[in-house]
Amino acid sequence: MRIDGLQYANWSEKIFRQMREGGVDAVHVTIAYHESFREAVLNLERWNQWFETYPNLITKGLTADDVKRARETGRTAIFFGFQNPSPIEDDIGLVEIFHALGVRFMQLSYNNQSLLATGCYEEEDCGITRMGRQVIREMNRVGLVVDMSHSADRSTIEAAEISERPIAVTHANPHEWAPALRNKKAEVIRAVTEAGGMLGFSLYPHHLKDNSKCTIESFCEMIAGTADAFGTEHFGIGSDLCQDQPDSVVEWMRTGRWTKEIDYGEGSAAAPGFPPMPDWFQDNRDFAKIEKGLRSVGLNESEIKAIMGGNWYRFFAENFGPM
Amino acid sequence: MRIDGLQYANWSEKIFRQMREGGVDAVHVTIAYHESFREAVLNLERWNQWFETYPNLITKGLTADDVKRARETGRTAIFFGFQNPSPIEDDIGLVEIFHALGVRFMQLSYNNQSLLATGCYEEEDCGITRMGRQVIREMNRVGLVVDMSHSADRSTIEAAEISERPIAVTHANPHEWAPALRNKKAEVIRAVTEAGGMLGFSLYPHHLKDNSKCTIESFCEMIAGTADAFGTEHFGIGSDLCQDQPDSVVEWMRTGRWTKEIDYGEGSAAAPGFPPMPDWFQDNRDFAKIEKGLRSVGLNESEIKAIMGGNWYRFFAENFGPM
Repeated sequence: MRIDGLQYANWSEKIFRQMREGGVDAVHVTIAYHESFREAVLNLERWNQWFETYPNLITKGLTADDVKRARETGRTAIFFGFQNPSPIEDDIGLVEIFHALGVRFMQLSYNNQSLLATGCYEEEDCGITRMGRQVIREMNRVGLVVDMSHSADRSTIEAAEISERPIAVTHANPHEWAPALRNKKAEVIRAVTEAGGMLGFSLYPHHLKDNSKCTIESFCEMIAGTADAFGTEHFGIGSDLCQDQPDSVVEWMRTGRWTKEIDYGEGSAAAPGFPPMPDWFQDNRDFAKIEKGLRSVGLNESEIKAIMGGNWYRFFAENFGPM
Repeated sequence: MRIDGLQYANWSEKIFRQMREGGVDAVHVTIAYHESFREAVLNLERWNQWFETYPNLITKGLTADDVKRARETGRTAIFFGFQNPSPIEDDIGLVEIFHALGVRFMQLSYNNQSLLATGCYEEEDCGITRMGRQVIREMNRVGLVVDMSHSADRSTIEAAEISERPIAVTHANPHEWAPALRNKKAEVIRAVTEAGGMLGFSLYPHHLKDNSKCTIESFCEMIAGTADAFGTEHFGIGSDLCQDQPDSVVEWMRTGRWTKEIDYGEGSAAAPGFPPMPDWFQDNRDFAKIEKGLRSVGLNESEIKAIMGGNWYRFFAENFGPM
């Protein structure tokens, strides 16, 4: 079973076919960065059109059983998530509404301060807000997973403590391997995993050691070392694959409508666009290479199965329904 | 099994308890008259709060099986509906979104012309519009029932013809028994029932012979005669109970935001508010009286069971899922 903990591609029949070729049984896909409630619903409507147009390639995922159903029918189950809580605006009631519409992950912040938590690019991290505590409780109640991938350290640690259910960092790597602002320090990974949570290893070049030039050996050694340090059961893949996106999309991800200035995020004025993916991970057909890479660095078959999808499957089964 | 095909009460614990006392296993409740998309979602959020607050009295209904589940656990299943298509605004994609949120009935118009169909108070009835045809097809696809209770004759007959699945008139009576503008002429009832559709008999005084003074004998004789003429299997109850509502609500129902003048609808300047209910049907505890009344006018037990809930149950089972 192969499950990817995060992608945000420029979706097309080509990509859906590549998911099938790559044997990817389920993907958590981002449907909002800075969208309002209505805009996020429009993005759900677009997915409904894709489900109607490509019923033999993809199917809507609501529960872990849908991953099995997708696998048995040769399709990929698509699970929805937000990288920012902007779609719930200031209305806690929208948590249950979006859960009913199939949303299964929500980041409490995206780089900046949100109504709920601090983002990883802020100077100051005030931790989980008053509304944030209420929303975490409501997310726990309905089965919407707290994702802290783009949140700041204190906020992430507090979220792991406050949440009554395990939380996730769907896409990031250990900071000590690649010291990007988005990667997670050991104490953050410890807080998330000790509370039963999951981290998905990212293949986004800005999160990799040596960026686009990162070797598959280095990536797989990092996985083996992290799994060894914190427990294999807490890790999966969260590729952060942004396949076929024009650079205007990374600009939207970074600046939304919150600034009139250019913000390069993890990029720079010299390299403002999406970075090139490592040559060994270009698209969904390359998961087999990672599997092989993990074997090469000494992981056994049950560890490899767990990291390539088994752990996410268990996490989905335990966290997508009401408490 | 007792199912009510329409209510719009000022919901409270008292009313939910009366539903239990009255043995009402399921109710189709109105959640929008003139609401925008966002406003209709706010009304859904309010219902989510009631489900959370009164889990032992009510439960959300999505399928016919939920009626059985409610019955077995001593609760009432609540099914959502719109009396106007205003919540989908001009966006056909919202049909599937609302179905996912649990909406199971939508009127194509409410008294006035809508984007989809003509309402029963318009001078001219142009029938189903271009968008109306598209929306009927989409409603058919996902399992959202076309309700023509407040629509004009031609529009209703056309909807019955265009729809590939049976349609409903959830709350109205035969025009020849009580010639209100809202009641349905024989050719309309024929079009709906011949296409497999359902009509729920209304207890709203403006739809009754002699209004609030209507006798239970007259009401039950009308049911027996109508069932005899068109086939028992096409009829149920759709009480249109508006219990405990302040008169400001009937004003909202009639005028929404479409006029600055007062529109008395079925009322008058002399009696602008909600009319008093007949003394034999005050609230949900009075369904047993109708059952007894149907027995008195000679219906047999299987006919009574069908009209009090069995027919709606079958209709729910056949029409709430994807085609």
